[in-house]
Amino acid sequence: MNLVNKEYQKRANRTLAAWKNSDHRAGDFTEPSSAEIAAMIDHTILKPDASIAAVNKICKEALEHKFASVCVNPVHVKRCVKNLDDAIPTCTVIGFPLGANTSDIKADEARLAVKQGARELDMVINVGLMKTANFQEVFDDIKAVRMADTGVVLKVILETCLLSKDEIVIACMLCREVGADFVKTSTGFSTGGATEEDISLMRFVVKEDLRVKASGGIKTRQDALNMIKAGADRLGASAGVEIIK
Amino acid sequence: MNLVNKEYQKRANRTLAAWKNSDHRAGDFTEPSSAEIAAMIDHTILKPDASIAAVNKICKEALEHKFASVCVNPVHVKRCVKNLDDAIPTCTVIGFPLGANTSDIKADEARLAVKQGARELDMVINVGLMKTANFQEVFDDIKAVRMADTGVVLKVILETCLLSKDEIVIACMLCREVGADFVKTSTGFSTGGATEEDISLMRFVVKEDLRVKASGGIKTRQDALNMIKAGADRLGASAGVEIIK
Repeated sequence: MNLVNKEYQKRANRTLAAWKNSDHRAGDFTEPSSAEIAAMIDHTILKPDASIAAVNKICKEALEHKFASVCVNPVHVKRCVKNLDDAIPTCTVIGFPLGANTSDIKADEARLAVKQGARELDMVINVGLMKTANFQEVFDDIKAVRMADTGVVLKVILETCLLSKDEIVIACMLCREVGADFVKTSTGFSTGGATEEDISLMRFVVKEDLRVKASGGIKTRQDALNMIKAGADRLGASAGVEIIK
Repeated sequence: MNLVNKEYQKRANRTLAAWKNSDHRAGDFTEPSSAEIAAMIDHTILKPDASIAAVNKICKEALEHKFASVCVNPVHVKRCVKNLDDAIPTCTVIGFPLGANTSDIKADEARLAVKQGARELDMVINVGLMKTANFQEVFDDIKAVRMADTGVVLKVILETCLLSKDEIVIACMLCREVGADFVKTSTGFSTGGATEEDISLMRFVVKEDLRVKASGGIKTRQDALNMIKAGADRLGASAGVEIIK
């Protein structure tokens, strides 16, 4: 492991220790209204077999309930931008869900999505390089998308279920250094989704510099409240309509 | 549904009826040797958290056992091409595993992979457009990659577990019309993998014009033999070493 990596590891260990000693589980919590929850939800349909009718339906629901955005696969961006007519931003995914394509292609995907009208991009980090402790390459990969996205909202998906706690801390540090807007937990296509513990840790690392998006397995109003209480500013869910009922 | 789609549907119905009446489950079968099975296996590691060490390991195994190819995510292509030194082709995946990014990006991915030395490409069809019966767009999407790939081996993943039997037939017809080299069942990231029935149907549709790759859930020698007997020419598996033991 090189010097830079050792430095990251040391900082991660210190941060983890501080988080464990903090009272991150306490604190006041005022339950948000349904409208306030709706404004935090990225109304999401990422199933590969989603039909055009299903995509049109979630756009209609998003307009009705004033969700934060509609989040779809790249092939549906144009359609959503047209459906939503600037009332609500279209969010799409980059390098999704494996994060294992090249930085060049992730950057191309970002550029094309923005050109087609996407205003939020949820990219997946290169998890394999993170697991191999190639932190510089993970940083460069996120940066390639940040440089390509011409200033739209960039959320970086860590796929927390595949990372150790100190890898989560380091990934959050890298996202802050790149200047991402959000750190996000999960794709919803791996072995697990958002947990309160991971949200709390991510919030602790990025403080108020970045926002935190919880995603994966958020199905009920209680799930949503738990995530918000733990520190999430944004929720990714396909069950948005049920959550705010 | 437009006229072209109606025509596809009619042809699919006729083909399905013919398949059901055929003796596709019978036929002679000589059990292949381990070396013959090895020569049919794409030795595969597509987990997003695969470390560089794990990728290097499967290259070594592929050289030792003379597998058909090594199949990795795009970010590992350069490394595999270097490791394998032309002895065995590097295979990578395009639009993987959701198939829901744009045709432009799939084509860019294909071009870059070929430039980096990949000699086989496993692309995923746009499943959502298939489910919406936009056959022309599904065709155009495959064609965009075929035009970009400069003549390497192109396998088209149908994600059979998400398709009805007649959608499988139509997808096979589209692949033949585009001039793909293989139809392939599954990504291994959806709700199911290869089945003998689907392999038999795909073989029946493409006859000897295209080859058929079975993938997803092939873990034992018996699984491999079942797929070969049903009509597969190629097997995608991460358990290649166990299969040929």
